Amino acid sequence: MTEFELIKKFFNQTPRLNSTCLGIGDDCALLKPSGNQVLAFSTDTLVENIHFFKGADPEALAHKALAVNLSDLAAMGAKPLAFLLALTLPAADEAWLKKFSQGLQDAAREFNVDLIGGNTTRGPLNINITIMGEVDENKALRRDQAKTNDDIYVTGALGAAAVALQAKHLHVPTPRVAFAQDLLTIAHAAIDISDGLAQDLQHLLQASGVGADLWTDELPLFKSATLDQALNGGEDYELCFTAPVNMRNQLLKLAEQHSLKLTRIGVITDRKKLVFLDANHQPMPLAVHGYQHF
Amino acid sequence: MTEFELIKKFFNQTPRLNSTCLGIGDDCALLKPSGNQVLAFSTDTLVENIHFFKGADPEALAHKALAVNLSDLAAMGAKPLAFLLALTLPAADEAWLKKFSQGLQDAAREFNVDLIGGNTTRGPLNINITIMGEVDENKALRRDQAKTNDDIYVTGALGAAAVALQAKHLHVPTPRVAFAQDLLTIAHAAIDISDGLAQDLQHLLQASGVGADLWTDELPLFKSATLDQALNGGEDYELCFTAPVNMRNQLLKLAEQHSLKLTRIGVITDRKKLVFLDANHQPMPLAVHGYQHF
Repeated sequence: MTEFELIKKFFNQTPRLNSTCLGIGDDCALLKPSGNQVLAFSTDTLVENIHFFKGADPEALAHKALAVNLSDLAAMGAKPLAFLLALTLPAADEAWLKKFSQGLQDAAREFNVDLIGGNTTRGPLNINITIMGEVDENKALRRDQAKTNDDIYVTGALGAAAVALQAKHLHVPTPRVAFAQDLLTIAHAAIDISDGLAQDLQHLLQASGVGADLWTDELPLFKSATLDQALNGGEDYELCFTAPVNMRNQLLKLAEQHSLKLTRIGVITDRKKLVFLDANHQPMPLAVHGYQHF
Repeated sequence: MTEFELIKKFFNQTPRLNSTCLGIGDDCALLKPSGNQVLAFSTDTLVENIHFFKGADPEALAHKALAVNLSDLAAMGAKPLAFLLALTLPAADEAWLKKFSQGLQDAAREFNVDLIGGNTTRGPLNINITIMGEVDENKALRRDQAKTNDDIYVTGALGAAAVALQAKHLHVPTPRVAFAQDLLTIAHAAIDISDGLAQDLQHLLQASGVGADLWTDELPLFKSATLDQALNGGEDYELCFTAPVNMRNQLLKLAEQHSLKLTRIGVITDRKKLVFLDANHQPMPLAVHGYQHF
């Protein structure tokens, strides 16, 4: 099977969105954002033996590869439009490709996003997706806009990926795409939790030039997850964001509309430090280690 | 070194272009095309032992990784704006990274394009770049617009990459970015030669529903390259395009302005077949094999 037969057989999808001017099959894909929106981009890679175990279910892998990218769009409040797939494969294994492309199509339909191009090459298994969305430049949920006295929120439960990893399961996260788009006029700053809440929140604090008090006893732990897994386990892909105090009621309603668990976990301070507080509001000497790539 | 230290140390560049609203450092980069332009995208991957030999010069590798992507923009006549780098590395080798990032910065400056984001992860060496450009949707040089009686042209010389491969050298192509943007109102259809002229021209013919007579004795061979290397060797990244006969003079002038070798190598026919002709205009039974990825 040539590269072209492979693409035609498994990945040649008809675009669904008006934003896609030209999909798979030419040297480039062409995309048009609507109105005054700007384009938002992110790219993420899954590597065998790093992000998943050999023999992982190809459908779930495809779903995860798209989900982790969608989570980056969610962290900006952007609306997903399209994605490119750069797939490095040891061989053109038709059974694997059939399942993988099925999972990718299902995920693309679920999140209403077009596969508009990509690249396949031979080599050690490496799944890279680049995603494109659109957002109002002035409303985008950046990391550097957190303000002193903002509430800090987190979606869903923390530590699910760490618990799955222990059991050698593949955790397929749910990107908070729709909810995040409704945060544009409510939240000040946002980040998605890819390397652990503690580390990712620190990035947000540093970018915004602020600090935070984090209430460790309020953290929404996933089932058997430990506090360390909730703070330092990577790959949860929940959203952490800050919002002014006067948005509390609106946020409660919004979370209910989206059937989404939303937990207030702390407050932004002007002390430029992340402080972990226990149930008695006493500082706890917790280490921030998070996920280290190298 | 953490992923964040690595990015900060080697890849944190200040955006140069007005189109870059937000560069490296947030969950997504933000990009704004100018006026009524649409965004053009392509993604390409270099894998060790497939696209380059172990120990290849990191500066040249970086240059090549960007060049092959720029070549896809050239094939649409798009103006380069920005790119994302997804780098999978066996280890955070500082000496390698220093040279690689230097090569990438040099190439980015040469082609006036911003590095706006990316991803680094651990695993077998895999260099993926996704490039973004802008182009007028109605003028973009697609593959499917070749017309019967169009002249067929090729830039530069063919077989250079095949000759370099034989000598175990890394061929760093020159993407025809500036020239291609001037073709928008002249050429009908274009493709870049990544898998061999014969195979890539066939893609263009199929997409356009036409055929071609190709004059094998007119092909601009690189130095010691054979006809087979010129027709079937991959990775030359020259442009092959078609244009109406009345554009010949304008194309001569344009090539001169760009100091670019430009050769007329055949004509589009309505016979829906690629025919190779020898010096006496007799058909030659040549095989189209090109580069096969699997």
